[in-house]
Amino acid sequence: MENEELSKAFVESFAMKGGDGPNTFIAIQYIIEAIQTQYQSHNLPTPEFQVFFNDQVSNDFNTLFQKLPPNRNYFASGVPGSFHGRLFPRQSLHLIHSSSSLSWVSKLPKEIIRDGSCGAWNKGRIHYAGAPREVVDVYEEHYKKSLEAFLHARAEEIVRNGIMALQIGLVSEEKVDTFNVPIYFPLLKDLKRKLESNEDFISEQMESLEAKIQLVPNVEMYVSHYCRAAVEALFEKHFGEEAVDELFERYTNKVKEFPEMMDLQNLKLDVLFVLPWIHNKEPINFL
Amino acid sequence: MENEELSKAFVESFAMKGGDGPNTFIAIQYIIEAIQTQYQSHNLPTPEFQVFFNDQVSNDFNTLFQKLPPNRNYFASGVPGSFHGRLFPRQSLHLIHSSSSLSWVSKLPKEIIRDGSCGAWNKGRIHYAGAPREVVDVYEEHYKKSLEAFLHARAEEIVRNGIMALQIGLVSEEKVDTFNVPIYFPLLKDLKRKLESNEDFISEQMESLEAKIQLVPNVEMYVSHYCRAAVEALFEKHFGEEAVDELFERYTNKVKEFPEMMDLQNLKLDVLFVLPWIHNKEPINFL
Repeated sequence: MENEELSKAFVESFAMKGGDGPNTFIAIQYIIEAIQTQYQSHNLPTPEFQVFFNDQVSNDFNTLFQKLPPNRNYFASGVPGSFHGRLFPRQSLHLIHSSSSLSWVSKLPKEIIRDGSCGAWNKGRIHYAGAPREVVDVYEEHYKKSLEAFLHARAEEIVRNGIMALQIGLVSEEKVDTFNVPIYFPLLKDLKRKLESNEDFISEQMESLEAKIQLVPNVEMYVSHYCRAAVEALFEKHFGEEAVDELFERYTNKVKEFPEMMDLQNLKLDVLFVLPWIHNKEPINFL
Repeated sequence: MENEELSKAFVESFAMKGGDGPNTFIAIQYIIEAIQTQYQSHNLPTPEFQVFFNDQVSNDFNTLFQKLPPNRNYFASGVPGSFHGRLFPRQSLHLIHSSSSLSWVSKLPKEIIRDGSCGAWNKGRIHYAGAPREVVDVYEEHYKKSLEAFLHARAEEIVRNGIMALQIGLVSEEKVDTFNVPIYFPLLKDLKRKLESNEDFISEQMESLEAKIQLVPNVEMYVSHYCRAAVEALFEKHFGEEAVDELFERYTNKVKEFPEMMDLQNLKLDVLFVLPWIHNKEPINFL
């Protein structure tokens, strides 16, 4: 009876941000296996798991649901909406996992696209290499607000002693460089500072990793799987649907023309891996 | 603090079966308002609500999510899968509502479509008016199993003292008459008997209602909204996609040709309304 209560109390809930690709399912599987191992090592019956897949309303949830692993050992739900706001009832999630999605800010900072008196207007460009410092500052400030909104919403939703694991994309100092799209990659030291000053969570462990991206067999695959999949919707909105095919075709040719610019055998991603996060500064009591 | 605990304990969860039409949202709104009124009458802060919309994986969840009322006062999730099996963790739902969907059985009884020695083979017909009694018996038996599977799964998922409200379509004795599709409308006395003998729940109240269907302005609207919307997918599977337009066009013409067969000003639906259901024979303690 005691075990049964425990198992019920630890029904696992996840908010999982990210597309409909197999990566999301693999991540869930790893997490569930890790928890099951913990329970088994204490001779406890494993709990039932409920997984919530979150993405924007415009995401293709139909495809996500059709691709769910048929032999999965969890109950699956789709949750539509922006993760910069509340998505779940108070204290209803035991574990939150977000990988690579926190580079999305809630919207494009308006100062950048509006001609005004401040120095942050980016003169209609979609790229800010060489843009005034003010442009980068506006992005960074907006990123900070978006990250805080995410953390604040999750702090309401997570149970006491819940765990949150985040993987956040980084950029190195010499590459502060992005598009006028609602994406921002922070510098490692800036991100750490933001996370440490956050009042909703404290972080037990932060580790910066250089994640090796799986071998990419050719340029076409690189462009379609790593570039187009991530930013196509944004480019469509900005340039119009009819321009996008040509844009990625021309980009593919550019990458082929200058192979020294893109070493497909050694693609890497700088990320900050943060685990565990402890809510309300209480000690973790996982079992 | 006590109130806060109470409000957390009563975060409402629903499993809501049924399409993407506005009817589902209206039903949820009524249910939430009724609960809020209860809380307010006890001077208690109203809880947060989480609503799970369930339908088959093949349902269009993208449309459902896009049509969610923007000012809704609940957190929404989509849950893909057959409600004849488990969809949620043990003891995780406070309220379950299903309207008009329990006429779907889990699959077409195989005895009916397979030529064999038993009398239940329906000789390839898609209609069983005038079919042998064995055909109706097989349907009825299969309906009983499907209903029991639904009740058994929900009994696992509902919290102690949870509430389940069902609206189940009925047919009158002289109209036992349907298609060879996985739908069955029971007779009132048979359904009551099945529900009363079920061991997972006991029913506090059953009421048979003659629900008046909203005024249908013309035959085309009746055929598209009440017939085609419900059975198009099944007919497509049975006859092929290319036959379906013509089928419903010919049906529309038939209804027009014999207006005395279909009184659009007085369409009615016989349903059994069952509320509340009490799990585990414990008294309801709603607040």
